Amino acid sequence: MSPVPVPAVPRPPLRVALAGLGVVGGGVVKLLQANRELIARRAGRAVEIVALSARDRHKDRGVDLSPYRWEDDLGALVAAGDVDVVVEMIGGADGMALTLARQALSGGKALVTANKAMIAHHGLDLARLAEEKDTPLKYEAAVAGGIPVIKAIREGASANEIARVYGILNGTCNYILTQMERNGASFADALAAAQAEGYAEADPTFDVDGIDAAHKLSILAALCFGTKLDIDAVATNGIRDLIAADIREAEALGHRVRLIGMAERNGSGLYQHVQPCLVPADHPLAYVPGALNAVVAEGNFVGRLFFEGAGAGAGPTASAIVADIIDIARDEYGPAFAMPVDALDHAPSADAGARVGKHYVRLVVEDRIGVLAEIATAMRDAGVSIESFIQRGTDDQEGVVIAIVTHEGPARAIAAALATVAASDHVVGAPMHMPILTL
Amino acid sequence: MSPVPVPAVPRPPLRVALAGLGVVGGGVVKLLQANRELIARRAGRAVEIVALSARDRHKDRGVDLSPYRWEDDLGALVAAGDVDVVVEMIGGADGMALTLARQALSGGKALVTANKAMIAHHGLDLARLAEEKDTPLKYEAAVAGGIPVIKAIREGASANEIARVYGILNGTCNYILTQMERNGASFADALAAAQAEGYAEADPTFDVDGIDAAHKLSILAALCFGTKLDIDAVATNGIRDLIAADIREAEALGHRVRLIGMAERNGSGLYQHVQPCLVPADHPLAYVPGALNAVVAEGNFVGRLFFEGAGAGAGPTASAIVADIIDIARDEYGPAFAMPVDALDHAPSADAGARVGKHYVRLVVEDRIGVLAEIATAMRDAGVSIESFIQRGTDDQEGVVIAIVTHEGPARAIAAALATVAASDHVVGAPMHMPILTL
Repeated sequence: MSPVPVPAVPRPPLRVALAGLGVVGGGVVKLLQANRELIARRAGRAVEIVALSARDRHKDRGVDLSPYRWEDDLGALVAAGDVDVVVEMIGGADGMALTLARQALSGGKALVTANKAMIAHHGLDLARLAEEKDTPLKYEAAVAGGIPVIKAIREGASANEIARVYGILNGTCNYILTQMERNGASFADALAAAQAEGYAEADPTFDVDGIDAAHKLSILAALCFGTKLDIDAVATNGIRDLIAADIREAEALGHRVRLIGMAERNGSGLYQHVQPCLVPADHPLAYVPGALNAVVAEGNFVGRLFFEGAGAGAGPTASAIVADIIDIARDEYGPAFAMPVDALDHAPSADAGARVGKHYVRLVVEDRIGVLAEIATAMRDAGVSIESFIQRGTDDQEGVVIAIVTHEGPARAIAAALATVAASDHVVGAPMHMPILTL
Repeated sequence: MSPVPVPAVPRPPLRVALAGLGVVGGGVVKLLQANRELIARRAGRAVEIVALSARDRHKDRGVDLSPYRWEDDLGALVAAGDVDVVVEMIGGADGMALTLARQALSGGKALVTANKAMIAHHGLDLARLAEEKDTPLKYEAAVAGGIPVIKAIREGASANEIARVYGILNGTCNYILTQMERNGASFADALAAAQAEGYAEADPTFDVDGIDAAHKLSILAALCFGTKLDIDAVATNGIRDLIAADIREAEALGHRVRLIGMAERNGSGLYQHVQPCLVPADHPLAYVPGALNAVVAEGNFVGRLFFEGAGAGAGPTASAIVADIIDIARDEYGPAFAMPVDALDHAPSADAGARVGKHYVRLVVEDRIGVLAEIATAMRDAGVSIESFIQRGTDDQEGVVIAIVTHEGPARAIAAALATVAASDHVVGAPMHMPILTL
């Protein structure tokens, strides 16, 4: 006789409280309304919003909030007895968001957050709290928006030792760079266009200086390498110093310029850097257009995995948040960083100066005799070997643009050469240098 | 006072039996040996091979099998009291693999398989058995090799209604097509090269006729749409009929030819088709080179997700198998098709003939007066509107190549026109037609 399956007892709904109702919060409400039945089928139980809190109750968010209880007080939202999951969408590394997160986890509630700054700065503490209370802490939306890259690395690539993880982690910068590529715009003009299109904030610092990407990179690194999150160890350069000629020369060299966050573990420790890089035209990152994000993870058995999708926006971010909620509804979750916090290594920072690779160097110089010799001498004295050297007049800068591609060598040598060169009276502004991504 | 965490009791090792030790089985042994400590950290417990079984005990697999118990009898392997997880790597939709899978699940063991044919044909029965016994059935390696696409769709995109899922699901075909692209080779020559490189079997039927891709597509469709697996409903065309001119004309039209498996749900039902398609040059699938695989899922909130990686080979397949094992070790798993089998819909097949799109049509015709008129008339009579029409002499076929791109129209009209045209005495061989992928 075949076994008679026990009739499944329907599981009670998972009750969700939303804190923060900006663009993302509104997206989560819309998603949970629009895909309600589908989510119940997939999660094996209903997912129900029970309570909301945000600064302004009366703002029109284009979505019907009347079915849900409104709490003016975040503490009351978190403490409510009918809340299983708190979704933090307030933002900011500290302040109200952090207070809420701690309260939620301390109270044994599940916490879902899209807050990369908070996870980058306080992720370990929050994960420890979640462990103590045996409750989920999930943050898929904090990295690369709608791309399920936290899951792909935490679980999909879990059998692999990861050599490198890197990618395009900031859609604003990628939008600006692809604008510069398409129409030869200056950084300032491309930024203005991005602001006009809603891809960049009025104060673009967090994006264009690489801070947002650094937050995300530090999270990816912890997951890939089983190391303790260390946002302070991420060296960060943004894209403000790029000029139109950089994009043009990169193209002429068969490359595209992308802001790349890369973490790499080697013998000396963990290297974490956000910086503009030259990406070879036969690498998939070279084809990531506009505001998309993409992440590459290189595993010792799987080889190169590449994930691309929308890195921001209401819909994609809501998709990631609700995926986390569904995991919780299914009881399919575990330690936030794939292992208990105490099992994470403390990895020392790698000696970035020893990192070997090819570099792109660009200088703007006065058009006069002897300047070339001065630069070539500085390079030689620093032990930098030159693979190619292009000199062109330019119309968007005063002076002459010199673009150099070096042979493989340590970053330290490039830095030494550039320090000498930058001190020259004949060099206009700061030299630009970018590593060339190896396949 | 802060709560004192209860010291965690170390969990016992997860004990794994491997059935089948071909290339993939050897890869799994190597992976579990090489990444042993890392896996234990990530899984929260050791993963240990306890027993093996394969046809030939004495074959050299380049890996030390002496630590593990050898079972000549698969039944004994599965029945052993010290086995928690059975990994099926025997292959074939039925026969020994299926017997083993049923025995494992019936005995309450977890089953991990790389067997796309078995899942495509018997996945529902096996999933039902797994549900009855409350034991995991996992098959990440069955689709797109090392790319964690089952997880990405089952969990990462779980909040979304999926409109379409499609991709490059067979590395052999993609290798052949990119060879044809690069050097203008004929299908036969590119196939021979793929066989010489080990990318194609001596009998390439399963790959080049699209059967392997159809298995994978049917699995993706079930997951994306919450429908019952229906391999018989997948219309399947391979790449044997492509000629060098198809690749060339596609390129001239700003496209590349890829074997695409696509599943789409619309009002009339579920459309599932494996066939060569023209992919626009600004779609990421156009840049998937060589033997890689890639999958696109389009969700109603997340937008387009794109995943790329190695679709086959010992390392990537082992990566996917061991990821499944780690999920089991972590107790992070649920129903095989994201929901209980009885909750899956039965979706009727969509009317493929009603599907509207642009098409590429290629004919080889005799070079004589009146042929063009004959073709144009057949198209007109079938209601097919022509966007572009290219006629070129060719050196790799007898006759003249005519390549046509139609305006948007139902597939039924194209088929009717081609039936008329194919009957003409002046048309050499069968006409080729491919849908043009819309973004």
